[in-house]
Amino acid sequence: MPFEDAKLLEQLRALLGQGGSAHDLSELLDELQPYDLSIIIEELEQEEQLRLLEAMPPVIAAETLEHFEPIEQYRFLDHLPAETKSEILNQMSSDAVVQLFTAIHPRQMDRLYKYLSKPYQEQIRNQMSYPENSAGSLANVDYIAAQCWWTAQQALAHVRKVGERAEIYNYIYVLSSWGELAGVLSLRELILAAPDTRLDEIMNSKVIAVPADMDQEEAARVIAQYDFVALPVVSSTGRMVGVITVDDVLDIIEEEATEDIQLLGGSQPLDTPYLQSGIFGLFRKRIVWLMLLFLAGTITSTILRFYEDTLTQAVALAFFIPLLIGTGGNAGAQTSTTVIRAVAVGDVNVKDFLIVIWREIRLGLILGLAMAAIGLGWSLAQNNDLLVGLIVSTTIVAVVTFSSTIGAVMPIIGKKLGLDPAVFSAPMITTLVDALGLIIYFQIARIFLPL
Amino acid sequence: MPFEDAKLLEQLRALLGQGGSAHDLSELLDELQPYDLSIIIEELEQEEQLRLLEAMPPVIAAETLEHFEPIEQYRFLDHLPAETKSEILNQMSSDAVVQLFTAIHPRQMDRLYKYLSKPYQEQIRNQMSYPENSAGSLANVDYIAAQCWWTAQQALAHVRKVGERAEIYNYIYVLSSWGELAGVLSLRELILAAPDTRLDEIMNSKVIAVPADMDQEEAARVIAQYDFVALPVVSSTGRMVGVITVDDVLDIIEEEATEDIQLLGGSQPLDTPYLQSGIFGLFRKRIVWLMLLFLAGTITSTILRFYEDTLTQAVALAFFIPLLIGTGGNAGAQTSTTVIRAVAVGDVNVKDFLIVIWREIRLGLILGLAMAAIGLGWSLAQNNDLLVGLIVSTTIVAVVTFSSTIGAVMPIIGKKLGLDPAVFSAPMITTLVDALGLIIYFQIARIFLPL
Repeated sequence: MPFEDAKLLEQLRALLGQGGSAHDLSELLDELQPYDLSIIIEELEQEEQLRLLEAMPPVIAAETLEHFEPIEQYRFLDHLPAETKSEILNQMSSDAVVQLFTAIHPRQMDRLYKYLSKPYQEQIRNQMSYPENSAGSLANVDYIAAQCWWTAQQALAHVRKVGERAEIYNYIYVLSSWGELAGVLSLRELILAAPDTRLDEIMNSKVIAVPADMDQEEAARVIAQYDFVALPVVSSTGRMVGVITVDDVLDIIEEEATEDIQLLGGSQPLDTPYLQSGIFGLFRKRIVWLMLLFLAGTITSTILRFYEDTLTQAVALAFFIPLLIGTGGNAGAQTSTTVIRAVAVGDVNVKDFLIVIWREIRLGLILGLAMAAIGLGWSLAQNNDLLVGLIVSTTIVAVVTFSSTIGAVMPIIGKKLGLDPAVFSAPMITTLVDALGLIIYFQIARIFLPL
Repeated sequence: MPFEDAKLLEQLRALLGQGGSAHDLSELLDELQPYDLSIIIEELEQEEQLRLLEAMPPVIAAETLEHFEPIEQYRFLDHLPAETKSEILNQMSSDAVVQLFTAIHPRQMDRLYKYLSKPYQEQIRNQMSYPENSAGSLANVDYIAAQCWWTAQQALAHVRKVGERAEIYNYIYVLSSWGELAGVLSLRELILAAPDTRLDEIMNSKVIAVPADMDQEEAARVIAQYDFVALPVVSSTGRMVGVITVDDVLDIIEEEATEDIQLLGGSQPLDTPYLQSGIFGLFRKRIVWLMLLFLAGTITSTILRFYEDTLTQAVALAFFIPLLIGTGGNAGAQTSTTVIRAVAVGDVNVKDFLIVIWREIRLGLILGLAMAAIGLGWSLAQNNDLLVGLIVSTTIVAVVTFSSTIGAVMPIIGKKLGLDPAVFSAPMITTLVDALGLIIYFQIARIFLPL
């Protein structure tokens, strides 16, 4: 249950101030989750923040820090005294350290690196050798390993010894004599097993694992599909690199959706949350697409120039331009976003190309006919003559059908070409169908109008 | 590691056929995860599907079924013999059963309901009393409960007894004598504890729990924020209802993003995956917004009619209409999707209203100026005279600035009004700024042109 901010904050401030009881403070901290603590820290002055982090048990301080963006983590760590800094850093999970080190300046990284214990330094260095955003860089090395010839009793004794420190403790990873991942066992299975059974008799030897160089989004999808809470990552030689945990997967899936949504809105994905992005950072993310779409959009002026004669003779045709191309754009945006998402979550594959086209042609036609009826009604209600109404409604049928089909086709073609389907954003489709819509409109007008 | 489809499928088909060895089949099934089995089932004929489900241990069959949509689950269950049906149903997690029962016809539900064991019937009935999509309906009742006066040893013995059946076993939920949720203990803590310690001495009594009537998306966000794998749900009287697990949360967060994306594309969210939605289902989801946007868009034709004189005297003005309002729409779509997502994931709140407006005004101005420069260059390159270039570029500055600001303001106002911010989709914003863009364009033209 979310804590009651104001009162708690006041209490905490008093305890952090001069003469506050260390015992009372530690009792208060005991009752809070790392996430709550991270929210509280945001409310404090820098002085208080640092005092609070020092007062926390290092393992809690580490988990609390992991709720912040890497840049902020660095800011806190940099200001803490050497000993606290070292204790907290060594308690942070390896994927968090890798993320932190990747985000900060190499010189800043050097300043922190020396506070890691020697064995942890080596693990981190090893993990940083995997590409950014790969399963390997996301893996956590803080898991429990056991040897395949151990008995259940031996393994349980081992869990009792190292379990308190391990961050991933619900599964025991069983290694072969050569250090390869040979099987997995849940803590429950271990508890339920007869004490003298060998692990290799009870372990599940068909382990689902992913290679360290797999993209993290792909690895995230494996966890989500299998409903796992943890997924082992192995090197090309079958050695265990670490474990990806579901809480990281949640973050990845959420980030991925955010990126897709931003792309769909026609801007490049932001690197940082919106309010933390500078104006010029946002500018850079938006100007590229805005400019490309503008240049693509200039074709509409060329098309209209081509129909200048028609337009001069019937200026009234111009009245319906925004409405008609707008409706086409809307139909295209509806289809493209639906299909893009379906491709992203794996509901639609490239092989479904023809099925999707055939659906969208029929769907576009029905939608177009329904909209045309409305368009005709509206046009006549506006006291336009029947001819104008017919031109408008015929155009609607054609434009909506074409737009729906194009909106469905483009993302799948993009996928086939290896592009991110979300590149075919609503603005992109809108711009494409604007041009097409104009041609359709004026061609139909030329047929109907006695020019 | 994904299995090798073709070979395995062939092998399985042989074992399912006449004279296949039951022993070999069960060995083969042992090596597969429920998710793999669900993929395999999709490849089989109905006859084989049913024989395979019957051959599986019921707990595995239940988990496999849970990977299918409720409608398909019903289809399988309905065709299975009574005994298998009953075994599988009783092994399905309570949230899955609730989801299944909610999705099918009440008469279909009645046909399945009687196969549940009496105690499970009561639990399911109780859980179905919570609103659809609430934390209560999503909770799983298959957790391990312990009494607060038990010792660690007693609790561990209890885990050994019931642990094999429980689906949520990494946490032990400690109940008070009145049956209220009093504390929580991880399996690891239980193993590490001295055998004769009482649970209420070692349990964490500040349990983060959510009320049963909380919306499931909100509950999902609590799990994601706290990095939990399980979250207890309590009734209004503090009694334990069940536990929400992170795998369900993953599904919710993904569905939520899908719904937002579909809304952002200007259609109502689909109830089923794209390819499984019928043409008329898709039609219904799209026609409403398409029609509303069309009706809103008709204002553009009224506006243009108002400027008919200006347009007749300078038909060339019409050439730039799609380009200018398109650019405004793009800028608006960029801002609105970014802000809508930021609101959805909690990066931006209603209280940030003024900060966001002030950012977007400045950002819009810079973007507008940059685009205007490009617009002027393009216009002159097209041999338009300087006057046209000036009208076009001045309009761009104004339109982009206004559109960015409107795109940011609308979602936050929507949030304040309790609407889903995603209602302010790219098509919606585009339609709004189309009208505004036309007014700006013609007013500027009237100032510049010697009419």
